[in-house]
Amino acid sequence: MKPRSVILLAHCPLRPGIAARLTELVHSRGGTILSHDQYVDAEIHHYYTRLEWEAAAASGGSEEARDAVASLIPAEADAEWSLSDSSEVPRMAIFASKDPACLYDLLARCHSGEWALEAPLVIGNHPELAEAAARFGAEFQAFSITDENRKGAEARQLELLRARRIDFVVLARYMQILSGDFVRAYPNRILNIHHGFLPAFPGSRPYRAARERGVKIIGASCHYVTEELDTGPIIEQDILRVGHRHSVEDLVRLGRDVEKVVLARAVRCHFQRRVVVHRGRTVVFD
Amino acid sequence: MKPRSVILLAHCPLRPGIAARLTELVHSRGGTILSHDQYVDAEIHHYYTRLEWEAAAASGGSEEARDAVASLIPAEADAEWSLSDSSEVPRMAIFASKDPACLYDLLARCHSGEWALEAPLVIGNHPELAEAAARFGAEFQAFSITDENRKGAEARQLELLRARRIDFVVLARYMQILSGDFVRAYPNRILNIHHGFLPAFPGSRPYRAARERGVKIIGASCHYVTEELDTGPIIEQDILRVGHRHSVEDLVRLGRDVEKVVLARAVRCHFQRRVVVHRGRTVVFD
Amino acid sequence: MKPRSVILLAHCPLRPGIAARLTELVHSRGGTILSHDQYVDAEIHHYYTRLEWEAAAASGGSEEARDAVASLIPAEADAEWSLSDSSEVPRMAIFASKDPACLYDLLARCHSGEWALEAPLVIGNHPELAEAAARFGAEFQAFSITDENRKGAEARQLELLRARRIDFVVLARYMQILSGDFVRAYPNRILNIHHGFLPAFPGSRPYRAARERGVKIIGASCHYVTEELDTGPIIEQDILRVGHRHSVEDLVRLGRDVEKVVLARAVRCHFQRRVVVHRGRTVVFD
Amino acid sequence: MKPRSVILLAHCPLRPGIAARLTELVHSRGGTILSHDQYVDAEIHHYYTRLEWEAAAASGGSEEARDAVASLIPAEADAEWSLSDSSEVPRMAIFASKDPACLYDLLARCHSGEWALEAPLVIGNHPELAEAAARFGAEFQAFSITDENRKGAEARQLELLRARRIDFVVLARYMQILSGDFVRAYPNRILNIHHGFLPAFPGSRPYRAARERGVKIIGASCHYVTEELDTGPIIEQDILRVGHRHSVEDLVRLGRDVEKVVLARAVRCHFQRRVVVHRGRTVVFD
Repeated sequence: MKPRSVILLAHCPLRPGIAARLTELVHSRGGTILSHDQYVDAEIHHYYTRLEWEAAAASGGSEEARDAVASLIPAEADAEWSLSDSSEVPRMAIFASKDPACLYDLLARCHSGEWALEAPLVIGNHPELAEAAARFGAEFQAFSITDENRKGAEARQLELLRARRIDFVVLARYMQILSGDFVRAYPNRILNIHHGFLPAFPGSRPYRAARERGVKIIGASCHYVTEELDTGPIIEQDILRVGHRHSVEDLVRLGRDVEKVVLARAVRCHFQRRVVVHRGRTVVFD
Repeated sequence: MKPRSVILLAHCPLRPGIAARLTELVHSRGGTILSHDQYVDAEIHHYYTRLEWEAAAASGGSEEARDAVASLIPAEADAEWSLSDSSEVPRMAIFASKDPACLYDLLARCHSGEWALEAPLVIGNHPELAEAAARFGAEFQAFSITDENRKGAEARQLELLRARRIDFVVLARYMQILSGDFVRAYPNRILNIHHGFLPAFPGSRPYRAARERGVKIIGASCHYVTEELDTGPIIEQDILRVGHRHSVEDLVRLGRDVEKVVLARAVRCHFQRRVVVHRGRTVVFD
Repeated sequence: MKPRSVILLAHCPLRPGIAARLTELVHSRGGTILSHDQYVDAEIHHYYTRLEWEAAAASGGSEEARDAVASLIPAEADAEWSLSDSSEVPRMAIFASKDPACLYDLLARCHSGEWALEAPLVIGNHPELAEAAARFGAEFQAFSITDENRKGAEARQLELLRARRIDFVVLARYMQILSGDFVRAYPNRILNIHHGFLPAFPGSRPYRAARERGVKIIGASCHYVTEELDTGPIIEQDILRVGHRHSVEDLVRLGRDVEKVVLARAVRCHFQRRVVVHRGRTVVFD
Repeated sequence: MKPRSVILLAHCPLRPGIAARLTELVHSRGGTILSHDQYVDAEIHHYYTRLEWEAAAASGGSEEARDAVASLIPAEADAEWSLSDSSEVPRMAIFASKDPACLYDLLARCHSGEWALEAPLVIGNHPELAEAAARFGAEFQAFSITDENRKGAEARQLELLRARRIDFVVLARYMQILSGDFVRAYPNRILNIHHGFLPAFPGSRPYRAARERGVKIIGASCHYVTEELDTGPIIEQDILRVGHRHSVEDLVRLGRDVEKVVLARAVRCHFQRRVVVHRGRTVVFD
C-alpha cells in the first residue's frame, strides 16, 4: 500500500529563497520529499510549484501544516495555494449525453486500480447511458433539459452534487451549456472535453466544419469551463493526422479516440493536483 | 439500420484489368460499390484489394458470388481471397492476465455500439479479471498455466474457442507464450499487443529496458502471432515522446494508453476485414 | 537517369469505367503505368486521379495525348485536368522578408538533387536575404512596398515572374498581403506558409496569441493563397506539443522548424503535381 | 545584443540544499539567474542541473567562479561539472559523405543568425560535398578512407580538428565508423545521426530493413558516439508514420527530413550546454 502523502500546489509572486524554504518546511517536520516540481514564469516573475511529500506519522495535524505554509506564502491578491492529503480520495461526477466512449473509459480507469478516484455519480440529459453507469455500479440520474426548466434542473443537479460530496465535474461529451451560476459553483473544477481543436472550430459541429475546411489534422482539447463558451484554461490537447479520404464519420470515429485520451490525461492531472490555473492559463506539472 | 454489405479481401499477382473486372462483377449483379481500396506493390508486381458493396436483394446466394470471384482470381500459389458478409457478426475471444486496461477498452467498444463485434469469451491465466468480464456479460474462464500442464490447457482452450464459435483471438496483455500448435490453429487470426516498440525491445520487460537505454520515445506494436516470438506481421504501431523525468512507472502508465489505442485500431482493422497478410507484412486498407 | 514520364492530374464527376478507360488509354499507346492514385468522394460522387506513366518513344506528340484525354474527360463545369511532362522542370519564385530559414531549406533542396525543381528568383520586401539567395546563385530583387506604391510594385513583380518564366510562387514567410489582382494571376499557384495552426490563430502574431491562450500544441499550415486572407485550400499541416515552460521565443523557434517541414512537403506535392484543388479543399496524392 | 551569460552544467550525488547553495552563489556575486533547470533521479539519488545567469561586470574572473563551484560540488567519482561562457562561441566540425541534406541544414542555421555557433570545417570521405561547404564559406577536406589508410587518415583528421580549434564533431550521415582512438579524443563530443530508429534497426540499411519488416513507423536517433557501435547515449529521437504504400525510396526521403530535424535539435541542445551524460543516458534540459 502506498504511504500517506501530502501535496502542496501553489503559485505566488516570485520571492528569493521560496523553494528552499518550502523544502526546509517539509524536512523540519520529518517529511520525505517525493517530488518537487517548480516553474518560474520569467516574463511576469511568478512562481508555481507542486511539492509532494510522505508525511511522518508524528508530523502533526494538517492544520499545523496549513499554518506553516501560510507563513511562507502570505495571502495576497496574486497568490493561491492548497494542501491535499492522499488519504482523501476525490470524488468525480460525470455528465454525459448519448455517446458512452468517454464515460466507459473514465469508469474503467476508476475501477481497474489505475486511478485513486471515485466516480459515484453519472448525470445524463438523456436516459441512454443508464446501462453504462450501472455496469460500474455508479448512480445514474437523467435530466431532460429545456430552456424552460434549465434553471430548476441545474439547481437539482447542484443539490445532487453536494449530497454526493462531489469534488469536481467532468463533462464527457455533455451536450448542454452550463449556466454562469452553475459554473461559479465549481470554479476551475469543471472539465470539458471539446471534440475539436480549440480554438480552431468552436461550436457544435466541429468535425463537419473540419471536413469542409479540408484540414489535414484534427484534435481535441480539454479545458476548464468558464462562463464564456470554449475559452477556459486549456489543460491538455492532442491531434491526429487526417486526409481527404476521411469522411465526416471517419473524423468522428478517429476524433473520439483522441477525445478519450485527452480527457483521461486531463482528469488524471486534475485529481492528482497537477494543474495550477493562473491568468486564464494552466501550468501542468505532469 | 445499415444494409447488408459484402466484402472481398484479396491479393494476387497483378494482371491487367483485374480492377475493372472486379467492379464489373459487382455491377453486373446489381450491387452498389461502397468502397474500393487497391494497392499495387510495384516492386513485386502484386495486387491487393478490398472491395465492399451493398448486395442487391436478388443478387443470388453467396455461393454464386464465390464462383464469380474464383473465376477472376484463380487458385494459385501466391493468391488468396475471402468473401465476408456484414450479416455475420464476428466473434472475438480476449486472452488477458491481470491488467484490465485493454480488456475494458475492447469490451466497452463492443457494447457501446461503436463496433459490430461480439466478445462473448474472456480467458485469463489468473482469476483477477473475472469481475471485468462479468461487468460486460462475458464468460470468463481462468487457466492456471505451468510448463507441465500447458499442452492440456491449450487443448481445452482451443476446444472452448470452437464451442463458442470464436473467429479470432486477441492477446490483450496475456503473459503466456502460445505453442506452435495453438498458433497454427488460428493463422493470422491471433492478434497480440506488444508493450514496447517492435522490433526495438523484444522480451518481457521492455519499459525497464527502454528506461535503461534512455530512449526519448516509447511505443506499442500490434502484430499477428506467428510461431517465432514477436516477429509476426505488424498491423499497427504508435509512439509517445518521453524524457529523462519519466520513471519506469511513468513509462508503464503512458505506454498502457498507447497500447490500448494501438490494439483497438488493429482489432477494428482486423474484424472489418481491412488487413491482408502477405510475405510476412500487412497491407492495411484503413 | 530517370526516363521521361507523363502525369495526368484530373477530377470530374464520377462516371462508370473511367479508371479502366484511363489505364487502357496508356496501355494502348505503349506506355507503362508508374503509379495510379485515385479517390472517389462518395458524398458528392466525384472522381479524382493522378496517373503517371513512362511514355514510349513512339507514343506520339503530347497534343495527341491531350486529345485522347479530352475524349475521356469532356469539358464541363465541374471537371478539370492537366497533363505534364517530366522533361519540363518547373520553376519556382520564392517571396520572403527577413527570416531565411524557409528560404535556405527550399534552395538547398533544389540544389542538392533532392528535387527536380528550379529556383531562379527570390523576391524580398527587405534587402536582408540577398546573401542567402546569392549563396545558391538565385537572382534577388528587393521591393520596398508601401500602401502607396503597392500597385506599381506588384505590376513589376508580375512582369519579373513572366520574364523569368515562373510557374508558381512560394511565400516563405513573406510579410505582405498580395492584392486580388496578383492572386488571380496565379490561381492555385501561390503557396503560403502560415506560422500558426489554421484556422486557429489567423493574423500576424499567432505565437504570441498561442502563448496567451495557453495552448499545448502549436502548428503550421501551408495553403494556396486566395483573395480572402488565410482561407485558401490547405495543402499540409503539422504540429508540435508545447507546454507552459515555453516562452514566446521558444514557440517561435520551435514553430520555425514545423513551418520549414510543412512548407517543404507542400512544395514537393505541388510541383510533383500531387495536389487537386476542388471546392476549396485539396486532394493530395502523396 | 544579448548580454554575457554563464552556464553551469553539473551532476552529482544528491545532497540537501544543493539547489539553494548554487543560486545563492550566483546572487552573492551579483549575477541574475536567467534559468535554473534541475532534475533529481529519485531511483539513484542523483542531482542534475543547468544554471544560466547573466554575469555582473564586476563579478570577477571565471577562475574565481570555478573555485566557488568547486567548493559546492567537490570532486568525487560520480560528479562532474563545467562552466561555460556565452562570449566563447563554440566551433563545430561536420563530417559527411554524399548526402548534403543534413549538412545544408546545419550550415544554414549557423549562418542565418539562428545559432551562435561556428561551422568552419567540413570533412568528407568523398569529394561531392565540396560545393555545399563552399556555399557557406566552410573549409572542405576530403579523406578517401580505406581499411589500410584509416589509422593515418584519422590522425590527420584529429590534427585538423585541433588546428581549427574544433569543440565538437557532428557526423551528418558520415558513412565511416570511427576508431576507438578517435572516439576517445572527443568523449561525449561526437554526435551521430542514425538513419533509423535506435535500437530498432542497427546497421547500414535500416530503411530497407524497415520496409521488409513492414513497420508502420520510421524514425531517427541522434546519439553520442561511443566505442561500441550505435549504443551511445541518445540525445533526441523522432518518428514518422508510414504504411504499405511507401517504397524504400519513400522511406529514405521521409526519413531524411526526420533525420535533419532530430540532428538539428540535438546539436542545439549540445552546443547550448543542455545535455548531461551520466551512466550511458542523457538528461536534456530543453
